[in-house]
Amino acid sequence: MYLDKIKNPSDVKKIPFVKLPKLCDEIRDELISTVSNTGGHLASNLGVVELTVAIHKVFKSPQDSILFDVGHQSYVHKMLTGRYDRFSTIRTENGLSGFMNPNESCHDPFISGHSSASLSAGFGIAKANRLKNKNGKVVCVIGDGALTGGMAYEALNNIGRSNENMIIILNDNEMSISQNVGAIAKYLSKVRTRNSYISTKAKVKNKIGNIPVIGKPTSVAIEKTKSAIKNVIFNQNMFESLGFYYLGPVDGHDLASLIEVMRSAKSLDNRPVVIHAVTKKGKGYNHAENNPDMFHGVSSFDYKTGYQKTSHGYSDAFGKSLCEIAEKDENICAITAAMADGTGLNEFSKRFSDRFFDVGIAEQHAVAFAAGLASKGMVPVFAVYSSFLQRAYDQIIHDCSIVKQHVVLAVDRAGIVGRDGATHQGMFDVSFLSAIPGVTVFAPSNYSELDEMLKKAIYDCDGVCVIRYPRASEPDKAENNYCGDDFCIFNRENYNKLIVSYGNLFNEANELEVALCKLNVLNITDKLILEVSKYNEVYFFEEGIKNGGIGQILGEKLLESRYNGKYKHIAVEEFVFHAEINSSLKKYSLDRDSMLEIISGD
Amino acid sequence: MYLDKIKNPSDVKKIPFVKLPKLCDEIRDELISTVSNTGGHLASNLGVVELTVAIHKVFKSPQDSILFDVGHQSYVHKMLTGRYDRFSTIRTENGLSGFMNPNESCHDPFISGHSSASLSAGFGIAKANRLKNKNGKVVCVIGDGALTGGMAYEALNNIGRSNENMIIILNDNEMSISQNVGAIAKYLSKVRTRNSYISTKAKVKNKIGNIPVIGKPTSVAIEKTKSAIKNVIFNQNMFESLGFYYLGPVDGHDLASLIEVMRSAKSLDNRPVVIHAVTKKGKGYNHAENNPDMFHGVSSFDYKTGYQKTSHGYSDAFGKSLCEIAEKDENICAITAAMADGTGLNEFSKRFSDRFFDVGIAEQHAVAFAAGLASKGMVPVFAVYSSFLQRAYDQIIHDCSIVKQHVVLAVDRAGIVGRDGATHQGMFDVSFLSAIPGVTVFAPSNYSELDEMLKKAIYDCDGVCVIRYPRASEPDKAENNYCGDDFCIFNRENYNKLIVSYGNLFNEANELEVALCKLNVLNITDKLILEVSKYNEVYFFEEGIKNGGIGQILGEKLLESRYNGKYKHIAVEEFVFHAEINSSLKKYSLDRDSMLEIISGD
Repeated sequence: MYLDKIKNPSDVKKIPFVKLPKLCDEIRDELISTVSNTGGHLASNLGVVELTVAIHKVFKSPQDSILFDVGHQSYVHKMLTGRYDRFSTIRTENGLSGFMNPNESCHDPFISGHSSASLSAGFGIAKANRLKNKNGKVVCVIGDGALTGGMAYEALNNIGRSNENMIIILNDNEMSISQNVGAIAKYLSKVRTRNSYISTKAKVKNKIGNIPVIGKPTSVAIEKTKSAIKNVIFNQNMFESLGFYYLGPVDGHDLASLIEVMRSAKSLDNRPVVIHAVTKKGKGYNHAENNPDMFHGVSSFDYKTGYQKTSHGYSDAFGKSLCEIAEKDENICAITAAMADGTGLNEFSKRFSDRFFDVGIAEQHAVAFAAGLASKGMVPVFAVYSSFLQRAYDQIIHDCSIVKQHVVLAVDRAGIVGRDGATHQGMFDVSFLSAIPGVTVFAPSNYSELDEMLKKAIYDCDGVCVIRYPRASEPDKAENNYCGDDFCIFNRENYNKLIVSYGNLFNEANELEVALCKLNVLNITDKLILEVSKYNEVYFFEEGIKNGGIGQILGEKLLESRYNGKYKHIAVEEFVFHAEINSSLKKYSLDRDSMLEIISGD
Repeated sequence: MYLDKIKNPSDVKKIPFVKLPKLCDEIRDELISTVSNTGGHLASNLGVVELTVAIHKVFKSPQDSILFDVGHQSYVHKMLTGRYDRFSTIRTENGLSGFMNPNESCHDPFISGHSSASLSAGFGIAKANRLKNKNGKVVCVIGDGALTGGMAYEALNNIGRSNENMIIILNDNEMSISQNVGAIAKYLSKVRTRNSYISTKAKVKNKIGNIPVIGKPTSVAIEKTKSAIKNVIFNQNMFESLGFYYLGPVDGHDLASLIEVMRSAKSLDNRPVVIHAVTKKGKGYNHAENNPDMFHGVSSFDYKTGYQKTSHGYSDAFGKSLCEIAEKDENICAITAAMADGTGLNEFSKRFSDRFFDVGIAEQHAVAFAAGLASKGMVPVFAVYSSFLQRAYDQIIHDCSIVKQHVVLAVDRAGIVGRDGATHQGMFDVSFLSAIPGVTVFAPSNYSELDEMLKKAIYDCDGVCVIRYPRASEPDKAENNYCGDDFCIFNRENYNKLIVSYGNLFNEANELEVALCKLNVLNITDKLILEVSKYNEVYFFEEGIKNGGIGQILGEKLLESRYNGKYKHIAVEEFVFHAEINSSLKKYSLDRDSMLEIISGD
């Protein structure tokens, strides 16, 4: 076995070329066996095994900075950079992160989790290297899906005409998380079809072995016009228009070609390069090859059969409700940013394909596009994870709220998300949305409420209307106690203590012996203040950031109304790292036991 | 005179072609005389006079939707769509907005103010038209600068391969607000140089008069390979790679060519088109032609000499301080998103050009790029307007804060900005930044504090450190009373009422007969709570949104600490529209008189 002998990336260089396929096999075995156990991202990692091995064969981390965009495909990189012994802890509390994180290893030069950011961060690193006279290439591995995010273009626009030592490896697997969409995808597909692969070592030598040294741009230009082969390999294309040296397409599972192309790219100094590698998501595990979507992010599954127990909880409940509404109402549109499956929109996409829009990993566009649809009387529902909606904050304010466009945001993964960790926690949405005048936020505690509130958001609400729900299922014995009002008080037994909460977290409080207030709409009205003020002690439990949270708005309003009882707002005041959801809830005193302790204590 | 007879856009169609130049002259006179009086955007509007006239000659608003990206170049459009009689009120309270606004006219189909959003909104309108079986083209006028914003690419990626009736007019003036930067700019410049203009009516007829009807894509393809002229006009380029029908470049001041090209574009159904028009910013007013930067956004100026009294107040003070620091410290970098002049970075850009980065209108990239620089030991300072920083909210959280990259954000135009109105108000930064764990926000009240706090942000602060200041100058008699602590209390005469405030607004309170607390760092510490609790009445005045504001955090903490005095938090709870800054302050009870009334009253 080679894998267990790799203590740092320089060990990869010691393995003879002919043994690398064996290493790749070992990596695939480890990926499948670990992820089948812990869950995580599988298909994307299986797709970059050879690519990552080739990177560490050619480049020298950490002097060269290796950045995996999004980072969910950095598992192989982790194994090859001294973390193989801890690989089984991936995505567990205190274990390895499922994404890149500089606090975990010097071989992770930037934090990842959100898409399309690696080029910008990498360009910063490249510029800093130059300013500090440090050598070192910057290698960014970015998928074709991530290229649909505008941030990647902002970076390409800056990198393309620079003279920085950046090598962008376009990991083109014809997928983002779902099937990739849009003009870029079609364009790449055209390039793939038009150009033959750089497929053997010999060919590569002949064709690009003598890449002209930089500093002679004219000779490059002359070569371009002269050589017919240039039309195949250095085909004038979008990347060249943007100023990059383009190498590709190359078979992303052919180690010899990959290594050769990377060496060529490395030899080019002071010039940004794009290597276009074509890979297959799920490569080497037939279940994943056949269902790359299903094996993108998985829970634990059966190694042999590929069977996984999937439960999409609130996401599926949302998708089902929206389909029912859309069945009767032709104005309903659904929008996703490359997350049709994750947000429960698969059925909608099939049944109402003309009103379904997968815009790519493009949250900014999604929200402004929704505003455009709304301005002409459609009712767009943008289903998006809470943490990704942060990308569209300006658009919610500027394009939607100032002129009160009726846009519905279905905010999934709101609250603590568990193993995906800090980059994916839905901690901020309540805070950043509540600051915007005219935004209404609904917080269902079960599927039946989700259904009713979604209808309210669509039919009884104006401006931006948000419905937020967690990465979870409703409780086993979900109690449908929705009163239809903005809040409900369950004043059982005339207690003088009141717990206020909302959404899924309310279910935690629901069996404690105390009066309860459930917020259905996250809006602090005079009526609510009046009701809450009747209690001597008020405890607000919030699964979100404290500053700007609803508990804080309530707190201030109580003070302004001269409430002089006891008030305690329990919420999150730091970044939440990967762990089981229940463990995080406990850590932040948001589980039932902590609630009980807090209201009993002091 | 023609202009005063245009009551709606159909009147433009009635004016004979030969008289249109006269109309354009009248428009330019009106632009220069009004803007010299009211201030506003001049150069960009002078550049689109013929373009806008041609649009209204060819298209039919509001059936056809005309969207001006950013909207600061929509003045001519306003004159031609029934708003000429009110044009002198532009940017004044209750007068016309300086940007597009659907609440102002049915001819403004979307809100504008922020860059690069028109394509997304326009695509939403186009899709809605199709779903509702409505006719109508969507025409988006977008500058080459706005094309550097990633959101525009997200939209192009979606539009390019659609079959929607969208016509994108690329208003290529080789400028964003400052000189345009990056690969896109260079690419466009290449296209301009390579291709000869479509310059006369006759030529256009011959070359593109017989544009093939859609539905015959193969014949288009055949024509492309056959016709040599295609290499000039339909040059295979980036827009074609993305699926657009490309027409151009065309002289953006040649009415005949513009009208002809637009008619050709209009005749293409079910296919997105790009018209590439080359214009000159400031066209027709020599002072603006020679100094388009200076005449981008102007205050009132002398019509004849072009002289304008410019005062950049805090922006210049910031730029000066940063230069002094950078002189001694080679790690200091400055970043702007196409706003070197507006943010006071002109001098820095000249003196430290290797550490100065104008990234284009690309706030997302700017922040992640800064994180990359910081990760390698540089100290990036990103100077940005508060409202534009909303675009980078996710990057501040994800790319900077989780791993505590030391990035300095110099947030300009924080608070009420006056005539630019709702899209430009700096209302949200305190709220959205305070929600992020580990972010420190400094709020200077004068230039000397700005200087000291900037040094603290750079040298005595970790993670994301923000320094925010308004679109204003310091008060005439700026008092340097900076105590160096997080807050200072001026307990004059042992009053039992306390006013708490920060930043520029503190200066409003500074002469009232009451105890004062000035927050220097927007952070509510136990020590502050202790001090504040000594007063019977606490009034927090905040020039920003109430929810999530610092006054709210203080309010909650006071309640949690069982303060039972009187607390009143005066802040903004709605969108603030264009008006003089003082008028808005008064409206929201944030001026000195209102403060006096509030603390005396009740």
